[in-house]
Formats: sequence, structure tokens, C-alpha cells
Amino acid sequence: LTANQPSAQPAAGGTAQLDQLQAQIEAAAAAVRQTRPLAGSITNNVTIDFVANAQLAAGGTAAMVYLPDEGETLADISAAIYINMGTQIEALAASIPATAARCCATGTPWVLDPVGIGIGAQRTQILQELKPFKPAIVRGNASEIIALAQLWGLEIPTDQPQTDGPLGVDTTDEVLTALPHARALAAHTGGAVAISGPRDLVVDAAHAIESAGGSAYMPQVTGFGCSLGGVCAVYAACTTPLVAALAATNHFNAAGTAAAAAPQTAGPGSFKVAFLDALANTTPAQIAANPMSAI
Amino acid sequence: LTANQPSAQPAAGGTAQLDQLQAQIEAAAAAVRQTRPLAGSITNNVTIDFVANAQLAAGGTAAMVYLPDEGETLADISAAIYINMGTQIEALAASIPATAARCCATGTPWVLDPVGIGIGAQRTQILQELKPFKPAIVRGNASEIIALAQLWGLEIPTDQPQTDGPLGVDTTDEVLTALPHARALAAHTGGAVAISGPRDLVVDAAHAIESAGGSAYMPQVTGFGCSLGGVCAVYAACTTPLVAALAATNHFNAAGTAAAAAPQTAGPGSFKVAFLDALANTTPAQIAANPMSAI
Amino acid sequence: LTANQPSAQPAAGGTAQLDQLQAQIEAAAAAVRQTRPLAGSITNNVTIDFVANAQLAAGGTAAMVYLPDEGETLADISAAIYINMGTQIEALAASIPATAARCCATGTPWVLDPVGIGIGAQRTQILQELKPFKPAIVRGNASEIIALAQLWGLEIPTDQPQTDGPLGVDTTDEVLTALPHARALAAHTGGAVAISGPRDLVVDAAHAIESAGGSAYMPQVTGFGCSLGGVCAVYAACTTPLVAALAATNHFNAAGTAAAAAPQTAGPGSFKVAFLDALANTTPAQIAANPMSAI
Repeated sequence: LTANQPSAQPAAGGTAQLDQLQAQIEAAAAAVRQTRPLAGSITNNVTIDFVANAQLAAGGTAAMVYLPDEGETLADISAAIYINMGTQIEALAASIPATAARCCATGTPWVLDPVGIGIGAQRTQILQELKPFKPAIVRGNASEIIALAQLWGLEIPTDQPQTDGPLGVDTTDEVLTALPHARALAAHTGGAVAISGPRDLVVDAAHAIESAGGSAYMPQVTGFGCSLGGVCAVYAACTTPLVAALAATNHFNAAGTAAAAAPQTAGPGSFKVAFLDALANTTPAQIAANPMSAI
Repeated sequence: LTANQPSAQPAAGGTAQLDQLQAQIEAAAAAVRQTRPLAGSITNNVTIDFVANAQLAAGGTAAMVYLPDEGETLADISAAIYINMGTQIEALAASIPATAARCCATGTPWVLDPVGIGIGAQRTQILQELKPFKPAIVRGNASEIIALAQLWGLEIPTDQPQTDGPLGVDTTDEVLTALPHARALAAHTGGAVAISGPRDLVVDAAHAIESAGGSAYMPQVTGFGCSLGGVCAVYAACTTPLVAALAATNHFNAAGTAAAAAPQTAGPGSFKVAFLDALANTTPAQIAANPMSAI
Repeated sequence: LTANQPSAQPAAGGTAQLDQLQAQIEAAAAAVRQTRPLAGSITNNVTIDFVANAQLAAGGTAAMVYLPDEGETLADISAAIYINMGTQIEALAASIPATAARCCATGTPWVLDPVGIGIGAQRTQILQELKPFKPAIVRGNASEIIALAQLWGLEIPTDQPQTDGPLGVDTTDEVLTALPHARALAAHTGGAVAISGPRDLVVDAAHAIESAGGSAYMPQVTGFGCSLGGVCAVYAACTTPLVAALAATNHFNAAGTAAAAAPQTAGPGSFKVAFLDALANTTPAQIAANPMSAI
């Protein structure tokens, strides 16, 4: 096994499954571009501008708030909500649970990004309160997905299905380590979980799909995880959690591949600029065609 | 009538009026570049970096605060102040009224951007408190201008003058819908109102001027409204409210036109970069020459 | 004397001293790239994204918080901490002193950026509380360095050594005006002080070194001072305060020179993009080779 080995092969029956998902992803991307859904956010201040611009470039509409009654109002007027746990301020102790509760009560899909889980009493307290409000999508890196499943006291399945092909080495393993925790989260929420890393996995009760592509520049720029979460919310306004998480991940990976290859890209600064261009310029067909494989 | 129809023609006598405004705009732009006025801000966190960079690129100096005594001090040391209602945090309930009151007491011009009007009790409360402090310029989109005039209980003139030419269709109508509310706001404040949209209108007690240009990329990037508001404050440090609002709007439209035509522009990411370059590179003469028409 | 005159010549014996510093800078830059140290920040919202992206591009890792217990935890898991006094919110009245105290107790180097010193009661109160916690590096412009030395009641040496060469004119004088205050701060902290300006000085008890280069675009973009402070913290994780402050300043000046000369740079927007590329692409040898002179 080497790091250069080709990606995992689809499971038996996976091809038909992937064909169907591709069609759903293309339809979702077309619907986003046509309806420009509002995906309101409570998100951290480091990357708040990047989240908004990524949501706009992907075809959605953005709005950000901090105060509790504004979060509830935003949930009422949004087609989906993105909640990111970074850069906590005191007001968010009330706002985040209130906004998630409103989404849960009204059936508005919401995306949870548990960034920074484990740091600070307020973040832990909020994350515990969020458990019953069942986000449509949880997005995080492997460590965050594992920590959230543990914080919520979920039972981790040990009898998970065997993968069908070689799984690669090194950093890939880290993503796969979180697969049972992602399955446990998906079983609890009834939605999807997106694990971001060198290889990106999207999981729900019935699927575990890898989305290839992207660029080594992505971890050199702050906010690719946050903005992916924000774009997951844009897609969640138009399709199921699984298809939304896959469409957003494919969209990012296709745009990342294109931006890394753009002639003007010469480092992390120009890569980010080219990435926002590519997010806007990647077509629904290209988003659907980004390489995926079932594992 | 089609969307491609030429812009409204100037009213009788409008040519001399526009010539005078052009001269005033060019003088204001030259004064900004020469004096680099400090235009302090209380503004939202989504676009705070873009506001500061736009103010710097336009020729001003930027500083941002949140706390009440800092807002009052900033008003004392600034040549003008920009107040944007986005991303409310609790401290702003005191800071924004205190800062506006200080500006009103000392004669420092300030710009109000009522973004998000209608969302949340705190924003509504603050906006009500701001009425007596009479901003030199109110900047917003048509919906925000209409909502602010209504929140302040202003009488909307129904006998407004007829326009002199074809007014176009579709989205233009939305901007024109806010014209009587803009006139009512200007009558209350004694200053100017800038309505941003597919066509940009600047209004005061005696004028309603359209500024053409700009780019379809602008609404695809977050913060063009906020940064225009911040640059209105830079200009308000050097000239009258009407000329300041027109100069800032012309500056944005000329830079937007140039950025859209720049060879490196290939999407919203590269457009924003080229726009900041163009803000800095557009000359006072080019700012003054951006097409305007009286309506 | 003219502004175009060559930079100050090294003091007698300065060449050997500079050779040694160059070697230490190159080693520090290599160590940063190899270890990717986490330099957590409490920093202002205007430039928070730029600070994080500059830290990443320079080779470090970034994380930002506001709440007191999060600051203490961040100090525990970071190799160095960056504290910037801009855009105060109420929570920082407790968080900043608690975080600095933790760094002081555990020997974690931290960098203080006293931006906005003199504005607002809270900022003054915090800065007074920080005095006993002795930052490894203080970074600011000349006015900020002077104000901090005065706020801390430090005795300003009047018998400072004569400089050995021509010191230039105009804006250079402003930086040199702060030299005795920088020496007083360094004597108090036992660390280094970086004075940013048209010419950048780095001072400790035994050295006063000028780092040349950079670009006139830098003051036209918000956050070059803040992001330099953040990168000082990245370097402080890997070397002494003096070498860290010099390495960060050299890194910025070398990258600024390269970015200003990049063919795609046409204004402040494209300069910032090219600068982030150059931060990532400048090699340890190039960072060490950026022109320095002892004064």
C-alpha cells in the first residue's frame, strides 16, 4: 500500500447507487442556482467573510447573526441554518440552542460544525444542549466527529461492514478512524455526517461515500472547513442531508482541483481567490461528475 | 421598454446641475486623497475587513470599535463616522446611540446603514433611538430605505415630481419604489440618502441623481453595500452629504466597471481583488466622469 | 541627507553579530516549517482572518478565542500566544489578563500588540494589568511603543548609544523616536520589541537591528501590523524573542518586496494576495538574507 494508490473501489452494487446519487447531486446544484436559498449562519469571526462569500459563490444567499431572538428569526426566514461553534462569545450560550431548537421545531434543516470541541466550558455546554435538536448534517474533521459522538454518549458500532478495497495509508486512516463515530451520529440524527480530511467521507445510515479531488492548498488557508459547512447548509435547503453533504463536498473538491490548476495560482493567497471563482464557475454537471466511490 | 434601454435622461436644467456636481465630486475625491481622513466605524463582523480595506483604497483611514466609550472617543478623533447595524452584539445597544449622539452634538457627519432592519428587538430599539441624531447619509437597498422611513414614522410624500424619461423595468422599479421614502428621510435628516441596487440613486431635498456603472459581480460578493457605506463616510469628511454620497457611489461604480473588465477577473473572488485595486487606481477625474443622470 | 540615502551602516563588530543572527533566523524559519507550531490568538475582528492566513502561510498553525477559560486552555496547548488589543469586547477584560498570566506562569512566550492604546477605559485597564506578565515580544508602531512605555511608567534612558551612520529623514525619525522607549520596554520584559514603520527596528537589551525591504502597499491594506504580530508568535515558538521578532520582520519584508514586484500586483487588493503567496514561498535562506543593519 502506498499513498499514491488509487482510491477505494465501489462496493458491489455501488455503481448504480453512485449513478443515482450523481443525478440527485446535479439536480440539487441546479436547484440551488435557480432558487438562491438563504442559509443563515451563526459562525465564528475568523472565517465569517469566507463562509458568506462561499455561500454566495455556490449559489446561495447568506446572513449572519449572534443574538438569540435574531437566531430564531433567521431560522424562520432561512431555508437552512449553519451553526459553527468557533470563537464563542457569551451571547451564543443562549443563541445557538435557541436557533437549533427553532429549526428542530419547524423542520428547517441545520448543519452543525463542532469546531473547537473540548475547549471551554461554554462550548461543551452548548454542544450537550444541541443533542436533541438533531442536525441534518454534522461536518467536521475526524477528531471533531469522534469527540462529538463521545460527548453525546452515542454507542459506537463495532460490527461495521468491511470496506471493499484498499484504504490507503497515513492520513487516510485518520478519516476512516472516525467512520464508526460518523455512523453513530447519523443513526442518532437520522441525517448525514461529512468527515473532512485528505479524503472526504460522507456517511448516513445506508451509505459511506468518498469524494475525491480538492487540493493540498486547502489546509494552508483558514476556513475551508467552515465554508464547506456553510455550503452544506445551502444545499440542505434543496435536497436530502446525504445528497446535500455530498453535493457540497463534491462542489468544494471540484472547485479545489480547478483552482489548484488555474494558471494564476501561485500560493495560498491566489488559490483562495481562484477557489471562489471556481465555486461560482463549476457547473452542476461538473459537481456531479467529481469522482466518488462507495466504501 | 426593455432592460437594455438607456438610462433616464436628465431633467430640464439638469445638465448644468450635473456639471456642478461633477466638479464638486472631483474636488472631494482630490481632498480625500490629500487628507486621508479618518472615518471610524461600528460595523458588522462579516464584512469588517472589506470596509476597512475599501476605506483605505479609496483614500481614507479606518478604525473600528464596539464599546460605548470607545465609540464616543472615535467620534471625537474621526472626521466622519460609519455605523452599520449588522451582526448586533449586546454592547452595541449602548455604543451605537452614544456614538451617534456624540456625532450629532459635535457636528461630525455620520453615515447610517440600517442593514437587517426588522430582525431582532435590539436592532429595532437602536434604530428608533437614532432618529433624533440625524445621519448625514443613510445608505441601504430599497427595502431597507422603505423600512427605515416607516420605522421612523415619516410622512411619505405622494406628490413627488414626475420623472422626465423612461425609467426602465424590472429590478429598477424596486429602487424607484423607495424614492419617496428616501425623500422623506432626507427631509428629516437634512442630509442625503443613497439607495443601492441595479441602478443607484442618491437623493437629497433638492436632487435625485442616478449613478450608472458597476458590475453584476457586486451582489455575488458580500460587503459591497457595507463598504460603500464606509466610503460614504470617508467622503462625508470632505464635502456635503449629497456630494459625498454621489462621489462614493460614482467611485464604486467606476471601480466596479473597471474591475469587471480587468483581464484577470474570472469570477467573484478575482473581481473583489480587482475592485480593491481599481478603488485605489481610479482618479478623481474618472470618479467625477462616471455617468450620472438627474431623474 | 535624502530619503533615498542608503540605510544605516552596521556598527563596528556588527557584521559578525549580523552573520550570527542570520544563521539563527534561517534555523528558526526551517524549524517553523518543520514543526508548524500552534500560535493561538486573542485578536481584533477587523484583521482576524488575515492574521490566521498569515500564520498559516508563514508555516504555523492558528486558533482564535475570546472567552477567559478558552484563552487559558489555548495558552496550555499553544507553543506561543498572540494578544492584540484591537476591537475590545467586554469578555476580553477578563480573557486577556488571564491568558497572559497563564503564559507567564507556564513560560509560554506571548506577543503583545497594543493597538489602539489610549482609546477606552477597558483597553487601558487591561494594558496596565499586563505589565507583570512580561511579553516575549511587544510589536507596534512608534506611537504605540511610546505610549506603552509611558503607560507602564518605565524610565526612559536618555543616555542611549549614538547611532553609527546616517539615519535618514522624515518618517524614519518617527521610528527612531521610539527607540529609547523600546529599549525601556525590553529592559522591563527581558524580551524584544519590534517597531513597525517605514523602517522596521527590532530591539532587545543588547541589540537594535533595522530590517529593510517591504512595500509602500503595506500601509494601504489593513492588518499588516496585526499579521506581523501573529507571525512573531509563530516564530517565538521556535527561537528567542529577538530572533523571532527579526525573523518575522524579515519574512514580512522579503515577502512584501517580492509581492510588490510580482507581475500580477496592480494595487492593494492584488498586493495582499501576492503577499500571502510570497509568505508561503519565501525560503528560510531568503528570510535570513533580507537586508539587516545594526544601529
